[in-house]
Amino acid sequence: MSFEFIDHGSVTSVPGFLACGVTAGFKRSGAPDFAMVFSEEPQTNFAGVFTSCTFAAAPVRLCQKRVLKNEYMRAVIINSGNANACTGDQGMAAAQQSCEIAAKALGIAPEEVGVASTGRIGVQMDMSLIERGVALAVPALAADGGNQAAEAIMTTDTVPKAAAVKVEINGKTVTIGAMTKGAGMIDPKLTVPHATMICIVTTDAVISNKTLLKILGKNAENSFNRITVDGDMSTNDTVLALANGRSGVEIAPDSAAEKLFADALLQVMQNLARRMVIDGEGATKFVEIKIVNARSVADAKLAAEAVGNSALCKTAWFGNDPNWGRVVAALGYSGAQFDPDKCDIYFDAIPVVKNGGDAGTAETDLLDTVKKSEFTITCDFNDGDCEYWVWASDFSYEYVKINADYHT
Amino acid sequence: MSFEFIDHGSVTSVPGFLACGVTAGFKRSGAPDFAMVFSEEPQTNFAGVFTSCTFAAAPVRLCQKRVLKNEYMRAVIINSGNANACTGDQGMAAAQQSCEIAAKALGIAPEEVGVASTGRIGVQMDMSLIERGVALAVPALAADGGNQAAEAIMTTDTVPKAAAVKVEINGKTVTIGAMTKGAGMIDPKLTVPHATMICIVTTDAVISNKTLLKILGKNAENSFNRITVDGDMSTNDTVLALANGRSGVEIAPDSAAEKLFADALLQVMQNLARRMVIDGEGATKFVEIKIVNARSVADAKLAAEAVGNSALCKTAWFGNDPNWGRVVAALGYSGAQFDPDKCDIYFDAIPVVKNGGDAGTAETDLLDTVKKSEFTITCDFNDGDCEYWVWASDFSYEYVKINADYHT
Repeated sequence: MSFEFIDHGSVTSVPGFLACGVTAGFKRSGAPDFAMVFSEEPQTNFAGVFTSCTFAAAPVRLCQKRVLKNEYMRAVIINSGNANACTGDQGMAAAQQSCEIAAKALGIAPEEVGVASTGRIGVQMDMSLIERGVALAVPALAADGGNQAAEAIMTTDTVPKAAAVKVEINGKTVTIGAMTKGAGMIDPKLTVPHATMICIVTTDAVISNKTLLKILGKNAENSFNRITVDGDMSTNDTVLALANGRSGVEIAPDSAAEKLFADALLQVMQNLARRMVIDGEGATKFVEIKIVNARSVADAKLAAEAVGNSALCKTAWFGNDPNWGRVVAALGYSGAQFDPDKCDIYFDAIPVVKNGGDAGTAETDLLDTVKKSEFTITCDFNDGDCEYWVWASDFSYEYVKINADYHT
Repeated sequence: MSFEFIDHGSVTSVPGFLACGVTAGFKRSGAPDFAMVFSEEPQTNFAGVFTSCTFAAAPVRLCQKRVLKNEYMRAVIINSGNANACTGDQGMAAAQQSCEIAAKALGIAPEEVGVASTGRIGVQMDMSLIERGVALAVPALAADGGNQAAEAIMTTDTVPKAAAVKVEINGKTVTIGAMTKGAGMIDPKLTVPHATMICIVTTDAVISNKTLLKILGKNAENSFNRITVDGDMSTNDTVLALANGRSGVEIAPDSAAEKLFADALLQVMQNLARRMVIDGEGATKFVEIKIVNARSVADAKLAAEAVGNSALCKTAWFGNDPNWGRVVAALGYSGAQFDPDKCDIYFDAIPVVKNGGDAGTAETDLLDTVKKSEFTITCDFNDGDCEYWVWASDFSYEYVKINADYHT
């Protein structure tokens, strides 16, 4: 099997997809803030997973309907600077109207357009900006526009995040491209078919909406749902995948091809999820928290998420502080069932806690590990065979600065 | 009914209680780090509520046993600088031995001594420091030593926190005194009889252990369990209450006297809980989050705690940012069941959100409120008649500084 990441890959690494990023005027800075992805194939299948927030934004609710009702999605428009969340009936009408404006300009049906928004919550959409965005975007659509699009969807992100892979399935090559944004309000809990992370996936596989949704949901659980920057889930988290079928490679349900495709897509999604954490607001550290040998996956998940979201652990990581007491405290209040006297903890491969107490490793030996920009904290409960992991960033002065100053 | 706070009140405002704070040597700074509270009455009833952390510290587990098994507690020793948590059998032996050392010096039984520890997790106790603490404390015990004791139990606290009230019950005066510490790792979930907040309560009421425990548990739920600084629960949270009976006022179960006593004690505990939040690590704001007209108390609690623990809300408060979108996002991911379209939000009395959308108040009108050092966020779900509230601090540069530098 051949599988490889494409250099500077993006949503337009996939044959038959065009994209662009333009400046519509949502951002005061004048930076690009409107992206469009377009499939040249009329019959482009699609799937989507979305935030489980009660206040799901208007574009989220609209796309959820599309996933349930519609057969094809040929275009996605994404604006950065206004979340169109908590905007009531007017917001929903704005989302619908945005699709109509794009559809008209592209010569397709409004139902074939998806929309995702990110930015300020509670502000009504300025439709003239959508109109300007669409008017600029349609002529700018290009077969090499994926990286521009990735730039236009950024908010507090410091770098654009796009990737693509080629994978050989049944002797032919399938390409999968994707872009994502999100540096704050990051703790997605994507549900099927119901994360302000936004991810747009493109592929030229031949795959049904149903199979694509199943794979997307499962992969989201093992990528975006495993990351946390600040423990705050957004009103707007959206992952949309478009499959234009141009490769001619059919991904039949429960086939070997499906496994190959799902694994390749997971590689792309994990690659982007990891980069979201590394580019997390103010982040200086990437910490993997692994709980192993737990009684249940649910226990392992409670424990991993408690450590990944602990303000005290996150500030300790920022401070290069090997204080495992904060890890232990977080495990202890997580609600996970385990025997504290059996718990071992490692920082990378170095034993830190043995049987619930100090493993005796000299603190100086731990410093080299916690000073690294990436390290793993493994908590072995020695109490079962279940596991769970999360990826978390640290909490820095810069995080506070970004979020105390974002709005004012 | 007469009820009043005593100026500069403390645990020693209660007749028959002595206290002191001395320097045993736990803190490198040389600041006082060892406190003792002592009741002159041989038959001093008591009760305690403790952390629900799986890794409960040795002194917590020892005091839990005392609450279940013992009749009297005449003395409590508290050290600051070593939590004696995750210290295994050796830690438990150290806690027991600490009680024995104090008992011997005081001429009472070891079972009559309670112990509470706060500080670094995972470090074995230096028993010579306990010995020195006890040796210095016993001769220093004084009828006006309560405020000294409150100082000695501080860790990252910037001010000592003590209070006392006098309440008239059945024509006689009952006094209740208390001290507390805790500025970080503050999100207590005290359970009966099982928060690193430490609180020692003294009273001269005549009250059984059972009645005192019932009141203490219920009051903890309405005071310490309502506060959050960083969302991190400690391994060492401890509330101990000692009742020496000297007032001669009997607090019979389910009597009017019990209600008067419980209410007075709640005033003291809420006073201290509020001051813990105001003195929270790096805190510049005290924010009350009230959920009203919810379907259930459980829903209201989930919602209130999500907002109180949201890093994005807390950094917005620090930044004087009226961004209600972050409040809405936190409510939305809290797991609480409510109808987003019915949700109204107020900053103090100013409408911010109406029916899930912008209430139309000019942002400049909100700025005066969010700039205040104390304000209330009320979320009206208009969906039932249940409510819950929490008190939360903000997240500042100073919080990160304190917690990135605490250890190293």
